[in-house]
Amino acid sequence: MSEISGKSSGPVHGLIASDRVEGTKVYRPSGEKIGHIERVMIDKKSGQAAYAVMNFGGFLGLGEESYPLPWSVLTYNVKLGGYEVALTDEQLKGAPKVDSDTWDDGTRDSDIYGYYGVPPYWL
Amino acid sequence: MSEISGKSSGPVHGLIASDRVEGTKVYRPSGEKIGHIERVMIDKKSGQAAYAVMNFGGFLGLGEESYPLPWSVLTYNVKLGGYEVALTDEQLKGAPKVDSDTWDDGTRDSDIYGYYGVPPYWL
Repeated sequence: MSEISGKSSGPVHGLIASDRVEGTKVYRPSGEKIGHIERVMIDKKSGQAAYAVMNFGGFLGLGEESYPLPWSVLTYNVKLGGYEVALTDEQLKGAPKVDSDTWDDGTRDSDIYGYYGVPPYWL
Repeated sequence: MSEISGKSSGPVHGLIASDRVEGTKVYRPSGEKIGHIERVMIDKKSGQAAYAVMNFGGFLGLGEESYPLPWSVLTYNVKLGGYEVALTDEQLKGAPKVDSDTWDDGTRDSDIYGYYGVPPYWL
């Protein structure tokens, strides 16, 4: 088995620690700070990160509520030193939210993924 | 689109928060505590949890070093209130380890997954 084959050796450099994601700031492409990541929600069985939960911290009067963003919506922007998401004020105001501590059972993954228009993580 | 279809609604109840995984104790099936989870290492691009990084905290004289366990090796045991892993002393002593803060570039995913004999996360 080749030691230098990218395929057999796996993605050595592509990992990030959960406790580094937590607390990372979230910006718009313009550089405007809109919140920070509270935590990552991981599918227990598959290990797939389903959401990065964002807290707006008062931005747009949205308060300390928690908004689950599909993992695939986030792009790390080295220049900004945080995640970049291209969401309008309207999109943010209508975004699905969850109870920060209990993860509301009424939240439907399909609703959230549908809202952001990205492919589901569970298929 | 049916609201009650498990498939289209996604796995509503199967998520765990990253900050709940961090700090969770790790036990043997016997109930013996062998360490705790420091963090989860997530593949940036796919969002797949590659590893739960375990700290032995001195168990077997292994010190405060960090040992990456494939996510699929962990099973949550409600009775123990933590993760259960069935690893012998010998397995633990020979386990691949990583630098806690920098995630050693020399660590090869294929070596770690091969050591625990579980299917790779990256294929």
